Amino acid sequence: MTLLLGVDNGGTRVKLLLARDAGGRLEHVRTADAPTPRGIGAMDELAAITRGFLGDDRADAFGITVAGIFDEASGAVVTSANMRWLEGLAPARELSDRLGIPGVVVQDGVATAIAEAVLGAGRGADDVFVLALGTGIAGAHVVDGAVRKGAHGGAGEIGHIATGRGEKCTCGQSGCLESLLGGTRLGARWDRARGVHAQSTAVDVVHGAERGDESARAVLDEATSALANGLLSVMAMIDPGVIVIGGGLSNSPEWIIDPAVDKARRQATFHAIPPIVRAELGSWAGAWGAVLAAEQRVGDALRLEHT
Amino acid sequence: MTLLLGVDNGGTRVKLLLARDAGGRLEHVRTADAPTPRGIGAMDELAAITRGFLGDDRADAFGITVAGIFDEASGAVVTSANMRWLEGLAPARELSDRLGIPGVVVQDGVATAIAEAVLGAGRGADDVFVLALGTGIAGAHVVDGAVRKGAHGGAGEIGHIATGRGEKCTCGQSGCLESLLGGTRLGARWDRARGVHAQSTAVDVVHGAERGDESARAVLDEATSALANGLLSVMAMIDPGVIVIGGGLSNSPEWIIDPAVDKARRQATFHAIPPIVRAELGSWAGAWGAVLAAEQRVGDALRLEHT
Repeated sequence: MTLLLGVDNGGTRVKLLLARDAGGRLEHVRTADAPTPRGIGAMDELAAITRGFLGDDRADAFGITVAGIFDEASGAVVTSANMRWLEGLAPARELSDRLGIPGVVVQDGVATAIAEAVLGAGRGADDVFVLALGTGIAGAHVVDGAVRKGAHGGAGEIGHIATGRGEKCTCGQSGCLESLLGGTRLGARWDRARGVHAQSTAVDVVHGAERGDESARAVLDEATSALANGLLSVMAMIDPGVIVIGGGLSNSPEWIIDPAVDKARRQATFHAIPPIVRAELGSWAGAWGAVLAAEQRVGDALRLEHT
Repeated sequence: MTLLLGVDNGGTRVKLLLARDAGGRLEHVRTADAPTPRGIGAMDELAAITRGFLGDDRADAFGITVAGIFDEASGAVVTSANMRWLEGLAPARELSDRLGIPGVVVQDGVATAIAEAVLGAGRGADDVFVLALGTGIAGAHVVDGAVRKGAHGGAGEIGHIATGRGEKCTCGQSGCLESLLGGTRLGARWDRARGVHAQSTAVDVVHGAERGDESARAVLDEATSALANGLLSVMAMIDPGVIVIGGGLSNSPEWIIDPAVDKARRQATFHAIPPIVRAELGSWAGAWGAVLAAEQRVGDALRLEHT
């Protein structure tokens, strides 16, 4: 029996997940949610948390997510906006040295997308586009369990297709999907529409719309149209077998997501409309993706031993 | 020595190309340009043209392009807007029966894209996005010599990314790249701007701009901005190693293409900017793509014999 450990090392919590490979099927063993260690000695603290979680079980391999960009060859973190203390460290090697088991690092968005595609809402399909609607808008095209990264690791940026019109985006372009649909932008747009300085969140806008606030509804309507266009663009450019929509906004699908899917279906002309489904793994997607990365690591090691 | 025949069966001309596989490198042997047969007996006439072209040489396999959609399993043409007489026929099988050599059918846009990626401007790169700027705007992502077709064969439609603004497109959406950049639309937009009914072509608009016509220049400027946005969107979504630009508009690159590439470079923010180069094979790209399809057919047959 192969035991696999997923460590989702987020900005505020560490999610730990132990899974068992039961004849090609991954089964959940147990999970834990812990604060994220910071600063000097963070890797020691992370190793202690992980050791406590494992107890007497010995994992065969682990995967650890990183919220940022890492160097493929060395596994060292290049930039992590929310976890600066990680920069320059190779988290998989550090944790591997301390736990005495092999590990692999995986980018958190990649982990989430692969998990949803393989184990979550996309399971059974071999060609899945995963959209994450959060503070930013992320996309990942997962084919046969692997993310298509492009020639420089930048593919899938559906949030930043260039239209050259409309609002200035944080990326510097104008009219990006994210400038109308990104969580932070929804709040800012509502505040601007009302002429207040409230630093509203996307959840505030949804609550406003639920209370019948017209300006909140207008902001959500524009976001709905933007998402409908994004879905149509994914169909035109990628033509996936399934589209999975996750992220914070998917918790209130009656605003934005459900009407956007309806709108995209109505506006589609030449497009092949695939099933468009909501993500299923919620906040545990990253940990499951880390488990999948660990599973791959074990498989690769076995292959190496046999050559 | 393997001899491979490419038949590019276009709407007005048949292009024939005989190539030799010289140790993994394709060498051009000879070419011919003939009128396209039509109507009843077209396949007989096409076979006669091809036989005359081959003379005493015996090709080991051929590829034939089809301008339209064909059924993958049977090779039968489903729709061909410009060659209705082909519909219901399986052109590779028909020609194979008459010539006595194995053949394979390939969609003309796919053939052109693969040829440019493998033998033309993209050679040496394994991840190439090919844009064809003609009457319509076509795109194809070629990875390791194969087009990524998507789950329903529709991927790469960069001409129809949805912005939901601007001009109505022939596809039924609004604000598509093609509605500002497609060859037919350029002429129509110029005629409308001048208030004339002239059925101008894209070449007419370019000539107008060269003569200093302000309205022609304005139409080309809008197309330039649209293409710059298209290039940025390809970088964001696909992140290719090389972008190749071909099609009729690439014959006058000083209008639209060169300024659009400059503009995209200036507007790029987070994007990895790949080399952006002009197509090299011109009107023979389709025939070369058919040769590549034939080569694959021979390779597949050899593999089958050895299993």
